[in-house]
Amino acid sequence: MKRLRTFIALAAVPLFLAACGNLSSSSMSSGSNTSKSGTQLTGQSTDTDYEGVIKSGHYQTSKSRGVTNTQDSGNTYNLKSFESGMQNVSKKVFSTKNYVFQEGQYLSTDTVQNWIDRKSKSNSTGLNPASNGSTSASKRNPIYIQAIEEQDYMTQKNNKLSLGGVTVGIAVNSVDYYKKEQYGATYETKIDKATGEAYAKKVANTVLQRMRKKSALKNVPIVIAIYRQASDDSLVGGNFLAYSTNKAGTTSVSSWTALDEKNYVFPIESGTSSPNSNDVSAFSNFKSQVENFFPNLSGVTAQARYSGKTLQGMHVNITTQFYSQTEIISFTQYLQTAAQKYLPSGVPIDITVSSTDGVQSFLARTATEKKFTSHVFNSY
Amino acid sequence: MKRLRTFIALAAVPLFLAACGNLSSSSMSSGSNTSKSGTQLTGQSTDTDYEGVIKSGHYQTSKSRGVTNTQDSGNTYNLKSFESGMQNVSKKVFSTKNYVFQEGQYLSTDTVQNWIDRKSKSNSTGLNPASNGSTSASKRNPIYIQAIEEQDYMTQKNNKLSLGGVTVGIAVNSVDYYKKEQYGATYETKIDKATGEAYAKKVANTVLQRMRKKSALKNVPIVIAIYRQASDDSLVGGNFLAYSTNKAGTTSVSSWTALDEKNYVFPIESGTSSPNSNDVSAFSNFKSQVENFFPNLSGVTAQARYSGKTLQGMHVNITTQFYSQTEIISFTQYLQTAAQKYLPSGVPIDITVSSTDGVQSFLARTATEKKFTSHVFNSY
Repeated sequence: MKRLRTFIALAAVPLFLAACGNLSSSSMSSGSNTSKSGTQLTGQSTDTDYEGVIKSGHYQTSKSRGVTNTQDSGNTYNLKSFESGMQNVSKKVFSTKNYVFQEGQYLSTDTVQNWIDRKSKSNSTGLNPASNGSTSASKRNPIYIQAIEEQDYMTQKNNKLSLGGVTVGIAVNSVDYYKKEQYGATYETKIDKATGEAYAKKVANTVLQRMRKKSALKNVPIVIAIYRQASDDSLVGGNFLAYSTNKAGTTSVSSWTALDEKNYVFPIESGTSSPNSNDVSAFSNFKSQVENFFPNLSGVTAQARYSGKTLQGMHVNITTQFYSQTEIISFTQYLQTAAQKYLPSGVPIDITVSSTDGVQSFLARTATEKKFTSHVFNSY
Repeated sequence: MKRLRTFIALAAVPLFLAACGNLSSSSMSSGSNTSKSGTQLTGQSTDTDYEGVIKSGHYQTSKSRGVTNTQDSGNTYNLKSFESGMQNVSKKVFSTKNYVFQEGQYLSTDTVQNWIDRKSKSNSTGLNPASNGSTSASKRNPIYIQAIEEQDYMTQKNNKLSLGGVTVGIAVNSVDYYKKEQYGATYETKIDKATGEAYAKKVANTVLQRMRKKSALKNVPIVIAIYRQASDDSLVGGNFLAYSTNKAGTTSVSSWTALDEKNYVFPIESGTSSPNSNDVSAFSNFKSQVENFFPNLSGVTAQARYSGKTLQGMHVNITTQFYSQTEIISFTQYLQTAAQKYLPSGVPIDITVSSTDGVQSFLARTATEKKFTSHVFNSY
């Protein structure tokens, strides 16, 4: 059995804090200060985004940047979904108004790598079960924990940033892909939701205890969020199952808040159902309008996110073989009208139009907007 | 000598005009009418874009869709630049307020293909010179005309669309790439600007005469625009050299309006100069701010368009090897601040951030806006 692991080792950026402004943009050293020393913030796109931390002109990258139990053919949706989802969970606890986002600075590459490895004689801190020697899909101990990621949330006081809280994401597999021999066939051990979630919750307690041993993390709130990875053949990423907010000093998780999030791919596969048939038919009407537009449009699909039975948003993908530039312009205008007419309102939606040459145009609408804004990628 | 030619043959869409509204959005059948018959318009993104024509639920694609003398390794920038540039030239004559855009319906695939071929015994209408038998780069007759494209501009009256004018783009090579034998090495015949332009202007007269022979085109204004293709190794497309507006009925071009447009790639190559050193240093400051942000940012370049010495706009491209999703979010916020601070104001600018996985985020600002809007491509 051979698993690939990706390390992107980075020189640890010294944690030196110099003058930095308040969160109000007037006094803040935001974005592109020419000063090469000191701390700056990235600037904020919208009120619902965190600003990020820049140190001495460089973005403060994570101390465990890029560490994960990478599958041979990973589902890239999981990566985006896990990281941006961790920020979304964090927003429930650390408001974007009062907190600044910093990539995790306390768990190092080595630490995280050891944690997501199997427990063994040489790796006493491994959070995945020791191998039981079996290579049978149903008898072996699978790799439950696929990734652990830290995000720091900073507060500002007297022109200094200090740690205000930490969020730790624990990503648990729904399918553990493994090989019996190097370069051999890939086998699968399925991990059902309840088993994976229970395992991750047990691990969460251990992680919390270990983090509390670091003096900087002793007295800050630590949010732990459990994410279930989608399988490699999924056209959408996984989702968060639960999170817990652990007050300063606590060393065991007292309670979990369940997150009833689920992702769907539209059009819905036959034999499966979605939480809301109105959304399905809205998308289906949109799709048939759009598919007729060109002689050779090849696909209209969407990722839809639900919380319970309520649609949270959609990412629509439209792919085709050939477009001329004027066709893209006209098509994008048409999409703007058709999307407003057919797609569900009141939720954020974006639409990406791609050809074999890459992204050609895109449209987006926030939850509160009525009209889609659009952009056609052009060239001089 | 072997040249590849691309035909994308399409069934000719019947030219049946049914009820269609006025240009005011209130009375217009815009975008996504469920009616499968009749004419609709695509809807308009902004006042400065033309609406397009939809017939019986399908986009009215060009009758000569995809015809061009395709080079073995064409410069894809030329294609986008030629087509959207033709629309820009057209806007000088046919206002977006009073005219609707329709892909060319009068020149067929066969017609255009014959015109852009060499003149020969079997092709009396060829607008490229007959072969003189030579394969020497300096002695052979090169292929001057690379592409000819038609765009139709429609007016609305009494709920009917009728042809209000036509724009014809003639794309002339700056370099003619040719092979002496099939699958052999590629050779180049350079065509200097004056020679190419003179040849294209001669061809323009012939094209005008031929178009006037079609009854539908006899009595409409015909704009002819001459485009000079960039070489295949260019990181930017070509540009329009001149255009002429030919009143209804005229059969020879009386006068040309020169267009002093030029494209540059930033950073400027050593040994070349740009029309405005302020823009060069603005970009250079932006670039160095941005390149320091990540440990492994790989490139910041831009396409800049000038009219005379005046900057018309910029397309900035930023590429890198690796980003996590939270890094993209922070980087995009940083770009928003840095771009506003450093990049030239008063012109449209967009910035595309790509990794090996494709486009990750993008930012845009119109000529009149101060702040950039941004979008990070995400996934559930």
